[in-house]
Amino acid sequence: MSKPVVFVSDLGLRDEFVGVCHAVIARISPGSTVIDISHGVAPHDIQAGGLVLAESLRFAPADAVGLAVIDPGVGTDRLAIAVETGSGRQLVGPDNGVLSLAWRADGGAKRAVSIIAPEIVVQPISSVFHGRDVFAPAAAHLAAGADLAALGPEVPVADLTLARLAEPEVERAKVSGEVLDVDRFGNVRLNVRPSHLRDAGLEDVSVLHVATLGQEADAPRISTYGGVGVGQYGALVDAWGWIAIIRYEANAAAELGVQSGDVVWLTAAD
Amino acid sequence: MSKPVVFVSDLGLRDEFVGVCHAVIARISPGSTVIDISHGVAPHDIQAGGLVLAESLRFAPADAVGLAVIDPGVGTDRLAIAVETGSGRQLVGPDNGVLSLAWRADGGAKRAVSIIAPEIVVQPISSVFHGRDVFAPAAAHLAAGADLAALGPEVPVADLTLARLAEPEVERAKVSGEVLDVDRFGNVRLNVRPSHLRDAGLEDVSVLHVATLGQEADAPRISTYGGVGVGQYGALVDAWGWIAIIRYEANAAAELGVQSGDVVWLTAAD
Amino acid sequence: MSKPVVFVSDLGLRDEFVGVCHAVIARISPGSTVIDISHGVAPHDIQAGGLVLAESLRFAPADAVGLAVIDPGVGTDRLAIAVETGSGRQLVGPDNGVLSLAWRADGGAKRAVSIIAPEIVVQPISSVFHGRDVFAPAAAHLAAGADLAALGPEVPVADLTLARLAEPEVERAKVSGEVLDVDRFGNVRLNVRPSHLRDAGLEDVSVLHVATLGQEADAPRISTYGGVGVGQYGALVDAWGWIAIIRYEANAAAELGVQSGDVVWLTAAD
Repeated sequence: MSKPVVFVSDLGLRDEFVGVCHAVIARISPGSTVIDISHGVAPHDIQAGGLVLAESLRFAPADAVGLAVIDPGVGTDRLAIAVETGSGRQLVGPDNGVLSLAWRADGGAKRAVSIIAPEIVVQPISSVFHGRDVFAPAAAHLAAGADLAALGPEVPVADLTLARLAEPEVERAKVSGEVLDVDRFGNVRLNVRPSHLRDAGLEDVSVLHVATLGQEADAPRISTYGGVGVGQYGALVDAWGWIAIIRYEANAAAELGVQSGDVVWLTAAD
Repeated sequence: MSKPVVFVSDLGLRDEFVGVCHAVIARISPGSTVIDISHGVAPHDIQAGGLVLAESLRFAPADAVGLAVIDPGVGTDRLAIAVETGSGRQLVGPDNGVLSLAWRADGGAKRAVSIIAPEIVVQPISSVFHGRDVFAPAAAHLAAGADLAALGPEVPVADLTLARLAEPEVERAKVSGEVLDVDRFGNVRLNVRPSHLRDAGLEDVSVLHVATLGQEADAPRISTYGGVGVGQYGALVDAWGWIAIIRYEANAAAELGVQSGDVVWLTAAD
Repeated sequence: MSKPVVFVSDLGLRDEFVGVCHAVIARISPGSTVIDISHGVAPHDIQAGGLVLAESLRFAPADAVGLAVIDPGVGTDRLAIAVETGSGRQLVGPDNGVLSLAWRADGGAKRAVSIIAPEIVVQPISSVFHGRDVFAPAAAHLAAGADLAALGPEVPVADLTLARLAEPEVERAKVSGEVLDVDRFGNVRLNVRPSHLRDAGLEDVSVLHVATLGQEADAPRISTYGGVGVGQYGALVDAWGWIAIIRYEANAAAELGVQSGDVVWLTAAD
């Protein structure tokens, strides 16, 4: 029984990159469903891609193999790895941290291998596209039932690279956070949870003051997008449990002038 | 035997929204094929999305479950519904009219339920993303063979919301229509059928005059895109039977200055 | 046992064009996996689409049916064809050359038919969207096991249209090539192979001079994107074996002012 593959990348859908990975997987594990979570991760944004993978796997079939191709170091000496988590999930990607949020959410990394077995990778390996030649075939072999050991020699899990996931700074009446991601609607997801607001004593504040390096806004706490008027700011808990700054039917990120990685300060509005 | 799911939304493919819905469906109904019709419907355009769903279902497997996630009212008290049509097709989406064109084309709404069964929805339900937590799981349970009754209590079909689908005004020698949609090539689909032109006595006119609020053009009646020269206007019957104003290898919508919902007047050119 | 379908087009993913083709295929051959290689081919770019199909099929399951919908002549008298290659692969598309690179790479065109059988095409055939009404159903019937002969009468393979694939001009110390494609990162793929550089005596040159009609740049030969600093030019062998001009984490095509079809001259830098 073939397992599904959950696929996240920054390869985009305009070119043939993602499609060829699908072709490779279909050749090796024809019975596997490939679930494309997103291929629109900002190029080389390891943190955002890793987060999308970790959060999506919670909703995926329990036996799905996670595949992340966000790989700015392709062709360098960074390892290509497959990891088995504490709960038995298999993950495939470059050893640059992109898988680490997924295994952290799933019982930790129990064992890992370096993907170098010549009967697994597509020969000759292009030095610029390991998605096609290393990661997709490795994920497909796991999906077809192979054990991690078939992919290559074991590497100590203690040596694996971890993603940075910045924690917000919590002070009295102030949270200094960071933009995790901006979605296509311009909604600004922060690395701030409701618990951080609570720790700062801001949980009962009905209007948050949002400051960025160049802009500021007052955002009422709302529970759904339509909780404010068209074009107005609001602060809500998004579908993944993060605090997001939105404007109803308008683009908050553009007006606030922020993108992924930028700092945002939350306080109580006057 | 799992049924396929036909999926239309305004969620876009840049973010993880659509992919996570796929993950949820794969978890509940692993044997179902998900057919993505379009996720590029203009945000909140219930009419355009409902039309795409209705027209696409005609070409889909007879047992396919229709799933539409165009949901500006997410988190408000609008119902989440599943509908069974006169011909036995099952449809899932918000009760905002987005499903109504599909059931109208398919024998009407025979029965409907409100999707609230706790064993169907993903708990806890996010107040901002019912696609993942309500609609995708409901569609997946139907695709896996569940009856509508498993999703929640019945609601009277007479209470369901209907989409507005504007009819053109037909006068002697003049049709006042509306832009239904603009595709990626800039082709302008009107809510005008050849029968409306016939009713206005324009069926034998070889060149139509097209007027918008700010522009005008003469468009010869053609049967295929290449029936006019590069950059020239033409009026043809598109693949869904609507009158469309096109420019060969050029963008008609941009030059006419129109978008979805705008008015267009058709008369005979001099 | 249903075969997979490998699908390439210029239809884009914003509208319902591709999704409806999926619906048609699912209706005729419900067990077939559809592998979307790319739907972002530049509109009407037969050469680029044909190349993507040919190169991707090498990685796809051996029995996959190739389907290419890049069809500027839809509705004219160009034939709709299905071709069987020397190695037994089946291909479906318009007779405008888009399939020819695939059959050339696969043992040549062994036999071909004109797709006109009324029990194959979707009736009535729209004159503007043969993807839905002719090509997708033909590919689906082949994927479900039909023989070519079921689609329509045989046509002589000698009459089939061939795609132009420009060869670069190779002189002593100079290669005059052409841009094959620009990917989403702005990397410029040329119709130049390492063998052309060798024939020009440029194989040991460590820095290539790249000239376009309006710009020039020096590009060190590198083996991976990170082989130069951020924003700097490099020349590498891309994942398909073509010479590509790149800028690390920057857009080479924009700065060089080139797009598909433009001429590029390669010489040795001083």
